[in-house]
Amino acid sequence: MSATPPLRLGIAGLGTVGCGTLEILTSQRDMLRERAGQELAITAVSAKSRGRDRGIDLSAYAWEDDATRLAARDDVDVVVELIGGSEGTARALCEAAIDAGKHVVTANKALIAHHGARLAAQAQTRGVQLMFEAAVAGGIPVIQLMRYGLAANRFHRLVGILNGTCNYILTTMERTGRQFDDVLAEAQALGYAEADPGFDIDGVDAAHKLAILSALAFGCTPDLDGMYVEGIRGVAAHDIAAAADLGYAIRLIGVAQRQGDDALSLRVHPALLPAEYPIGEVDGVYNAVHIFGDAVGDIFIEGQGAGRMPTASAVVSDIIDVARGTALPPFIVPASALTPARILPMDAHESAYYLRLSVEDHPGVLAAITRIFETHGISVARLIQREEEGGACILLTTHEVREAAMREALSAIAALGSTRAAPCMIRIEPGER
Amino acid sequence: MSATPPLRLGIAGLGTVGCGTLEILTSQRDMLRERAGQELAITAVSAKSRGRDRGIDLSAYAWEDDATRLAARDDVDVVVELIGGSEGTARALCEAAIDAGKHVVTANKALIAHHGARLAAQAQTRGVQLMFEAAVAGGIPVIQLMRYGLAANRFHRLVGILNGTCNYILTTMERTGRQFDDVLAEAQALGYAEADPGFDIDGVDAAHKLAILSALAFGCTPDLDGMYVEGIRGVAAHDIAAAADLGYAIRLIGVAQRQGDDALSLRVHPALLPAEYPIGEVDGVYNAVHIFGDAVGDIFIEGQGAGRMPTASAVVSDIIDVARGTALPPFIVPASALTPARILPMDAHESAYYLRLSVEDHPGVLAAITRIFETHGISVARLIQREEEGGACILLTTHEVREAAMREALSAIAALGSTRAAPCMIRIEPGER
Repeated sequence: MSATPPLRLGIAGLGTVGCGTLEILTSQRDMLRERAGQELAITAVSAKSRGRDRGIDLSAYAWEDDATRLAARDDVDVVVELIGGSEGTARALCEAAIDAGKHVVTANKALIAHHGARLAAQAQTRGVQLMFEAAVAGGIPVIQLMRYGLAANRFHRLVGILNGTCNYILTTMERTGRQFDDVLAEAQALGYAEADPGFDIDGVDAAHKLAILSALAFGCTPDLDGMYVEGIRGVAAHDIAAAADLGYAIRLIGVAQRQGDDALSLRVHPALLPAEYPIGEVDGVYNAVHIFGDAVGDIFIEGQGAGRMPTASAVVSDIIDVARGTALPPFIVPASALTPARILPMDAHESAYYLRLSVEDHPGVLAAITRIFETHGISVARLIQREEEGGACILLTTHEVREAAMREALSAIAALGSTRAAPCMIRIEPGER
Repeated sequence: MSATPPLRLGIAGLGTVGCGTLEILTSQRDMLRERAGQELAITAVSAKSRGRDRGIDLSAYAWEDDATRLAARDDVDVVVELIGGSEGTARALCEAAIDAGKHVVTANKALIAHHGARLAAQAQTRGVQLMFEAAVAGGIPVIQLMRYGLAANRFHRLVGILNGTCNYILTTMERTGRQFDDVLAEAQALGYAEADPGFDIDGVDAAHKLAILSALAFGCTPDLDGMYVEGIRGVAAHDIAAAADLGYAIRLIGVAQRQGDDALSLRVHPALLPAEYPIGEVDGVYNAVHIFGDAVGDIFIEGQGAGRMPTASAVVSDIIDVARGTALPPFIVPASALTPARILPMDAHESAYYLRLSVEDHPGVLAAITRIFETHGISVARLIQREEEGGACILLTTHEVREAAMREALSAIAALGSTRAAPCMIRIEPGER
């Protein structure tokens, strides 16, 4: 058994996840050797600052100031890319590594969402592995789940809570009744949100992950073009409380779903979810994915979405898979079989809706609004009108209707001149299993 | 690509799962070929009754009356054993198939729980695969999850709802307030429980699955010896209602947990679980597994535990893995590395407890009972005494205490001569994540 030479790793990026990866690789050597069938040996590392104290002894590893040089080293079999970003050094390193016949394990969602199909094709040509479990939902091995344990299924729907920052903010607002800005500021102070939070709270990060998951589930080229992406800035404490009264929780979700034979609904947005639906109960920084397959029915999986050790767990599990000699294409099917998704335009999306309208408090406003709904074929399920300072607040839910009709109705309502603020519209996602 | 010859399957057992397996294999041929890298072709089948109408055309496959003859056929590469039972034809077929150099995919939990280590060793010697995802929790690919996506983790705890019949009975009792016998009879009428229900409701089925999961998680020989197994016959509608009042749900769980350096707690029993803990919310015939790893933290996965298509999903996913040329030992580590579990005796188990005592309603009984608790170092957390017909009912929960002390206390209470029925004792499982 010990005749097998070690699998030699070059690790680029020694931030949180990079250091967690080193920690697992150095502290669990015997267990990993047993599971991988060979020694997993770090030979070289690279990071921006060599001098920074990471609390880890790097003296046994060769150092590269320029990460891309890891791709050229004869003593590296696998490049572990933990730098991040869809372009620049990360991309150059991965391309160079594959080109040099080295396997690549990465946690880089932006890179895979933007260039995954090209990189997968390049990896297949060179006969190397490209693995990216850590790019999606940190500690939840949803990619391996689809590649292996659910391989017999034709998937038809996938709903995920894919961004821990948004989930932390929304569940904290839910628990405390506090407003968005206030909770965001706290999340930034605690390190759960970045100083520039747009990537998370505007849904971009979740969109990257959804692009990757939909490629695996539906065999479409990972791509952000045409995906509907809306973040959580528009969700008020008000809405969360009103949703709770109606039996719903508000979460940022990513949904990929077959529509008819060859179209996909592909969207990231906040949604009202039945509070007893597993996805509606996901709390704090947890992530979750609910997958629907034709044979298996539904599978719900929940775990930590980010952080040093959960993400490193995914990175090292991928390295073990490489060591075992996996021969599976990165997106399960050959890169040449991936086809661009035909994405259902949001205008054609059908959904129930939650609306919050802030209106002038004078006679006839409610009648005018309900008349507009009638005109656009929108059927109101529940409606509450409350007084609010300087006017009235109308909270309502509708039955299912095409989004185009809803948008036209909202324009018509705005044109009434009786609204005091832009309406808040949040989609209601059904909770069927 | 089409140069690869098909992987030829011989399927033994054409009951629910066997027919589901045929259905996936025949209806999804193109998708499976793409994912497996080769055609999955059924060549021969075997079942008890050739004439039975299964609604499936079997005319294209060779027929064997004697399933074990599938092992001898030159046109079979993989034997799919869906007969069941730890001995008899199922065991003979699997042994003969491996011996003949054929891969084995099975849904047979009893076989793997009793003979898994031997069969795994035999398979390794012959260089073939032995796969059994379908043996545990039907549609939940928890075995593949541990083999692949969580491979970087040292596991320390695993809690599962592993028997859908028990979960259906307990959650129906919870929802309706009806008694055990009544709900069991209904479950039998609906086909959710067998005419002879002992295998399910006495915890044997869950024990088989726990033995398999603990082997994968902890590298111990799958074995039922020394495992504590208690079913749900003793759970009354009363207890479920009292548990709900205290914020708990009652479920049959299997727990495998490291105790110190080399011991394992390995047990199947009903338990009170915090109702907001994911495992406490698993409803109906769903199964779930909550896995704790040193890197990943905790992962919760829920899905359908049985049934034609979910179980067939697991069978066919295993066949795909065989087609891909997986080289992983059945229990992740080589069979020679599996070691017998050193199981913590239940007397040494520490737990909080729920007790229901039916006592004579005369002065001094409560004082005598609480004195016994004091003597045995048992600290009461909550206590309610209610009148009941002909006496009194005392419901209480305790803080953590060794089970030996609890059992001694219960003996002492019985010796008082004031109890009107055997006490009901249910363990409380903590819900930490």
